[in-house]
Amino acid sequence: MNDVAVIGVGMTKFGKFLDKSLKDLTREAVDGALAHAGVEKKAVEAAYVGNAMAGLVTGQECIRGEVVLRAYGIEEIPVINVENACASSSTAFHLAWMSVASGLNDVVLALGVEKLYSEDKKVSFRALGSAVDVEMMASIKDALKAGDGEGPGDGAKRSIFMDFYALWARMHMDQYGTKKEHFAKVAQKNHYHSSLNPHAQYQDVYTLEEIMNAPVVAEPLTRPMCSPIGDGAAAAILCSARTARTLTRTPVWVAASSVVTGKNRDVDEPDITERAAKKAYDLASLGPQDLSVAELHDATSAAELIGYEEIGLCPKGGAARLVDEGATSLGGRIPVNTSGGLVSKGHPVGATGVAQIAEIVLQLRGEAGPRQVPGARVGLTQNGGGAIGNEAAVMSVHILKR
Amino acid sequence: MNDVAVIGVGMTKFGKFLDKSLKDLTREAVDGALAHAGVEKKAVEAAYVGNAMAGLVTGQECIRGEVVLRAYGIEEIPVINVENACASSSTAFHLAWMSVASGLNDVVLALGVEKLYSEDKKVSFRALGSAVDVEMMASIKDALKAGDGEGPGDGAKRSIFMDFYALWARMHMDQYGTKKEHFAKVAQKNHYHSSLNPHAQYQDVYTLEEIMNAPVVAEPLTRPMCSPIGDGAAAAILCSARTARTLTRTPVWVAASSVVTGKNRDVDEPDITERAAKKAYDLASLGPQDLSVAELHDATSAAELIGYEEIGLCPKGGAARLVDEGATSLGGRIPVNTSGGLVSKGHPVGATGVAQIAEIVLQLRGEAGPRQVPGARVGLTQNGGGAIGNEAAVMSVHILKR
Repeated sequence: MNDVAVIGVGMTKFGKFLDKSLKDLTREAVDGALAHAGVEKKAVEAAYVGNAMAGLVTGQECIRGEVVLRAYGIEEIPVINVENACASSSTAFHLAWMSVASGLNDVVLALGVEKLYSEDKKVSFRALGSAVDVEMMASIKDALKAGDGEGPGDGAKRSIFMDFYALWARMHMDQYGTKKEHFAKVAQKNHYHSSLNPHAQYQDVYTLEEIMNAPVVAEPLTRPMCSPIGDGAAAAILCSARTARTLTRTPVWVAASSVVTGKNRDVDEPDITERAAKKAYDLASLGPQDLSVAELHDATSAAELIGYEEIGLCPKGGAARLVDEGATSLGGRIPVNTSGGLVSKGHPVGATGVAQIAEIVLQLRGEAGPRQVPGARVGLTQNGGGAIGNEAAVMSVHILKR
Repeated sequence: MNDVAVIGVGMTKFGKFLDKSLKDLTREAVDGALAHAGVEKKAVEAAYVGNAMAGLVTGQECIRGEVVLRAYGIEEIPVINVENACASSSTAFHLAWMSVASGLNDVVLALGVEKLYSEDKKVSFRALGSAVDVEMMASIKDALKAGDGEGPGDGAKRSIFMDFYALWARMHMDQYGTKKEHFAKVAQKNHYHSSLNPHAQYQDVYTLEEIMNAPVVAEPLTRPMCSPIGDGAAAAILCSARTARTLTRTPVWVAASSVVTGKNRDVDEPDITERAAKKAYDLASLGPQDLSVAELHDATSAAELIGYEEIGLCPKGGAARLVDEGATSLGGRIPVNTSGGLVSKGHPVGATGVAQIAEIVLQLRGEAGPRQVPGARVGLTQNGGGAIGNEAAVMSVHILKR
């Protein structure tokens, strides 16, 4: 398979944009990526478009990519609409990589775009609730309702995923002695990082106390430890090595693209992120010690902390110490979520995967401004989606390098 | 890029199956394809899953493929969920082909699965109405409502696509003198073909008079000229040339896989099917004269007739004569829709693309039973989806050969 480069990235600010359509968000992100790459829209030979929830939020199913790209003036080329819950656009990026690596295409677009905000908040949460096995979840809800009349994920108040994440957080606390404060420190770090990122949904800096004492979403997770809903888009232009060398002096190479799905896992087996990361490290012939920077799927700050262990930044049970050392903060040994992460940059689900790629590309090109990791050479993204049984339904890990 | 073979196909009967879930349909189709290929489910390295409307019909969005395949016992591997309206599973097949052609995977699954029937028929038609630019369509409906209070595609009575197809049929009649009887003859042929296909939704043979005098869906199209809604699944196993040669003496080769999307087209420019077919013929170094058999997207019989011209079976304006000669019937020069086509085999939208592939594979392996085209060596499938402006949103053409 051929080498593949990312030569340009673009994204909208993430946030609440009731007055912007999927088409508006697409235009802004793709314009940015094309300008960054220095190529015209007519150079794009195929488009891979990740979106998770337009069907349930806006009613646009089936041909989401064609609709938003036609409005932008990209037509005729193959448009592949990809869904994979919160990992929709990293899956789209995987296919974009495959199409160039195969030699089928020379220049392609990977796009993630999502509008989660709706005038009716219940619409948003119900859409998020579709990222599970809906038949299985209906049974669970029925069983719980028979008990106390109020199951997790009743939909109207919060995403059911926050209940899953809180459960995993409590298990980590029980097993390794991790404290709520550690999750708060991770959140504090990411909110600080996002204060340096103009595309982030929030730019607010918090004290540890403010995060600890904020309203509880699901114990031990407080609101600043949880990703908000949001709208946004992110785009990347990928191309062959030959074309990359004619267009840029700073190509970023896709060293590994891995997508794995969940399984009915015994508790002592490697979890889905470990499996996805191992596959990516193997493909790249690199290991965690080689990373300069990483974007992890911190749908909650607990997930980020646990993720440190899963991608091998520290041994099992060592994440709390890593946090106490400040290793994953800007200026630390291995900064994580310099963008602000899902918790503070925001998490318009179908846009998140490519937005992570965008942050790593900026870091590896030395274009991350006040949040630049000096001399960054290798970066990793981890982007998960949905849940079936006791783990995520899908996990995608990418490794990029200078 | 490497050669890719199809080594097994399977499908459910198409029909109204309110008591079967997406999981049930998946099991039956994938079981069939694996048995046909002679491989175990653990050999499958990646799955590409086309579904168009589960989000709006069953509420299952985001991770449709993971949900149905996990229940079947396929887990851990990459699962890519693909949408492209009625071309969802031919798009999934395109990606499956790409992943083997690239060398990334050796054995992969392409699956199309759909449940359109709902206890509430309005749910089905509203879902079908999502395969357009929903914002644009809302404006059209508003404008029409201001006139006579009843726009096309009011949703509860029929799919809006039938209005598009009726318009295209009337244009062909005006331009070339084609008669309603020609569309009826095409429908009659397909209903006869499906009487030989146990997987078809219908097995009823009609006289020409019965078809001409059946209730009108949208003039000139009567009910037997229009595809029904339905449930079903179809699966194909693809693999590398080396593996194919160890597993079967009758590999069917993917000579071309083309997916193109629509454009804002001037009326005298080649239409989307012509563009997709030209691309496929070029990739395969074959032409319409080389075809032994074809499966065309006869969402209506008028679309099939017009399709004859678009894929080059006859010159522009020559389709009616082709029909009068019986060239596209079993026993004719180039039999089309030996499966019964969408009109009679049925059209569970996300399953249709791979079901077309399945029919061609059976034909090329000489396994099509009473509907076998003797000595078939090259087959083509044409599968379209959605609509934006004056043409389909997406069109996929595949060419398979012995």
